[in-house]
Amino acid sequence: MSDSAERETGGSFMPKFDSQGLLAAIVQHAETGEVLMFAFMNDVALEQTRATGKAHFWSRSRGKQWMKGETSGNTLAVQQILVDCDQDALVLKVLPAGPACHTGQRSCFYRQLDENGLSPIPTDA
Amino acid sequence: MSDSAERETGGSFMPKFDSQGLLAAIVQHAETGEVLMFAFMNDVALEQTRATGKAHFWSRSRGKQWMKGETSGNTLAVQQILVDCDQDALVLKVLPAGPACHTGQRSCFYRQLDENGLSPIPTDA
Repeated sequence: MSDSAERETGGSFMPKFDSQGLLAAIVQHAETGEVLMFAFMNDVALEQTRATGKAHFWSRSRGKQWMKGETSGNTLAVQQILVDCDQDALVLKVLPAGPACHTGQRSCFYRQLDENGLSPIPTDA
Repeated sequence: MSDSAERETGGSFMPKFDSQGLLAAIVQHAETGEVLMFAFMNDVALEQTRATGKAHFWSRSRGKQWMKGETSGNTLAVQQILVDCDQDALVLKVLPAGPACHTGQRSCFYRQLDENGLSPIPTDA
């Protein structure tokens, strides 16, 4: 089987890191399905996440490894990791210990875009 | 208000494109909450999506603009666009015209990762 076919249909985990060595990581609440945040993972973050069960990432803006909640305590307990067809994106199904957003919001996605700009969405949506 | 504070708490849409001119775009089913796919958008893709109501992206691998479903017919009708705290990631809430994945799967995230590699997840999960 070609690498491409194996990557799409096979049982081998062959993560396809991008030119900066990163995978996209979508964090979704394991029970409600709400998308809580988005970040990137390098190989170290992925290994730390798998080893500890808590979500770790690579910060592009700060240029460092980080564990979500390392200062706030609002860690993310990873229940399941889904992998997409070409293995360059992950969905982390998590149970959050608190608000996922550093602003204190439950999710980082607390605004919607319309023709006039951004407006808050109901937090119980 | 500083740019950073306005970006996080304000009503202005100030998309923060990365060094390659891209935003992360998470596609989520508007009714079921299932994450269907992940891709990137540049400014043109974002404008085309807002103008047409159908999801458009930038393909990093092919180096071109594309509309999801332009060949398959499996377009994504965008119902709502959510924006995250630092405005570098979007959630597109969509109603899909067919399978979202080019493999024919409903979602690109059809496998889960465990200690032994990847295995299929039930499609009605």
